[in-house]
Amino acid sequence: MLMHVEPSHSFDLAAYLGSRRARIDATLESLIALEEPRVLFEAMRYSLLAGGKRLRPILCLAACELSGARAEVALPTACAIEMIHTMSLIHDDLPAMDDADCRRGRLASHKMHGEALAILAGDSLLAHSFEVIARHTSGVPAKRILAVIAELGRAAGPRGLAGGQVEDLTHEGKRCVSVETLEDIHHRKTGALLTASVLSGALLGGADGPTKGRLRRYAERLGLAFQIVDDILDVTSTCEALGKSVGRDASAQKATYPRVLGLAESTRLAEALIADAKDELGCFGERAAPLVALAESTIAAIR
Amino acid sequence: MLMHVEPSHSFDLAAYLGSRRARIDATLESLIALEEPRVLFEAMRYSLLAGGKRLRPILCLAACELSGARAEVALPTACAIEMIHTMSLIHDDLPAMDDADCRRGRLASHKMHGEALAILAGDSLLAHSFEVIARHTSGVPAKRILAVIAELGRAAGPRGLAGGQVEDLTHEGKRCVSVETLEDIHHRKTGALLTASVLSGALLGGADGPTKGRLRRYAERLGLAFQIVDDILDVTSTCEALGKSVGRDASAQKATYPRVLGLAESTRLAEALIADAKDELGCFGERAAPLVALAESTIAAIR
Repeated sequence: MLMHVEPSHSFDLAAYLGSRRARIDATLESLIALEEPRVLFEAMRYSLLAGGKRLRPILCLAACELSGARAEVALPTACAIEMIHTMSLIHDDLPAMDDADCRRGRLASHKMHGEALAILAGDSLLAHSFEVIARHTSGVPAKRILAVIAELGRAAGPRGLAGGQVEDLTHEGKRCVSVETLEDIHHRKTGALLTASVLSGALLGGADGPTKGRLRRYAERLGLAFQIVDDILDVTSTCEALGKSVGRDASAQKATYPRVLGLAESTRLAEALIADAKDELGCFGERAAPLVALAESTIAAIR
Repeated sequence: MLMHVEPSHSFDLAAYLGSRRARIDATLESLIALEEPRVLFEAMRYSLLAGGKRLRPILCLAACELSGARAEVALPTACAIEMIHTMSLIHDDLPAMDDADCRRGRLASHKMHGEALAILAGDSLLAHSFEVIARHTSGVPAKRILAVIAELGRAAGPRGLAGGQVEDLTHEGKRCVSVETLEDIHHRKTGALLTASVLSGALLGGADGPTKGRLRRYAERLGLAFQIVDDILDVTSTCEALGKSVGRDASAQKATYPRVLGLAESTRLAEALIADAKDELGCFGERAAPLVALAESTIAAIR
């Protein structure tokens, strides 16, 4: 089964990621120029331009290209997705939630700017993200753009990020958390936006039904694997290496995969999910090389 | 000048508002059914279905009709606007911001549900609002819907609500605030969403350029008058009458019109703005009766 989906040995993931990141960072920078009130735009830029991996926007651009369009048409949406993701990081770090001090290798927003500005910078990024998609996407039928907005609105809202954070907080400190509950939390907290990133790219690229189905299943598996890896690294890594607070899951008695399944079984599950994700893309051959390589790189950190 | 714009004596504003409110409330109720996580959907519904005046959605529907389309096409957008407005109320009331206990005659969201849920209920309403517009608007060209989303994203973001709240907090406790600063704060905090409500209705209704211009100027004047009246009522009214905390502006040394201009001059200014707002609609005759009557009702509370 796997023979179809091995990435070409000529595919240079590091170079690919570097050039995509540079493109996304430059566009993000231009989309949030410094205006009045300056403190607010500075707070938005502080968190947004802090050098994240840009995994979600890169997935969006790659899915758009795989579906047959130029990556450019998905660039505003890719940047909007990073704004939504950053909003959720800023709000999740607040004292009333995870109370984290460290994010992307810097002080968390509320530690740097105070709570009020952190909340409003998050709100601003969320509102601005939809404006960016609606105003800056060109070369695509308007109906497709509306479908993207509906998808991302859902992924950011109570059925996605916000709902996942509520469930996460609800299950903190509980002794028994089932694998089903854990999967539901992670599906909302990570899977929803990651899947929406891939699907948005597919929609903008004009993917047909079967392609959208394959990309959706790829993204769902990747999203869950990604969160399991994140849980594992919170146990095994350091703040310096990750650029965010670690060990908090255990101290807050968060529902995590290592806690419920153990480290070894969690690692095995992440590997299996990535193999399944790659399998979905077998039929696309070389066109899927970036997405296949991205899936593999997700679990490289725990190998 | 004013002879063109007096509302018809046959126009029954109370009946009009009652039927519009019922329609909007029923749609809002259906747009946020109770799902998991239940506590989150309950928190969203608690603030959204607390019986607000629904001024912004009613303005949106009225502008759509004045522009020549059925109000129905603007109903999802009208409801989305109320979600955005409610989000800003929930977040503005948080301890890190205005720290208000009372809203729409009930405990503020953070007092009822705790800070984390209040923040996430606000985030959820904001994200959901854009999904609602993109998914539920029908009978309108997709390009117009994108223009509405761009307009509302701007009004909710750093150039609108969020930016206005930042400026408001920045100027708290300052001795000297100029009328220009005050106007800028109010333009963002109230004017931006109110103007976007009217403009969204105009866009969905297919208004031509001159009609959009007149409606925009009407809305800008109405929005400023509305905020001045709000400032005045904070000085002269009670929590029971308003359904929200009063006297907070003075105790927090907020920048307000009564503080900068005095009560008498503030009242005169509000009256003049409403007269100008009505003037803009003179050429539409009877079609503008609801918008004219709405403008008049805004200042009735301070007469």
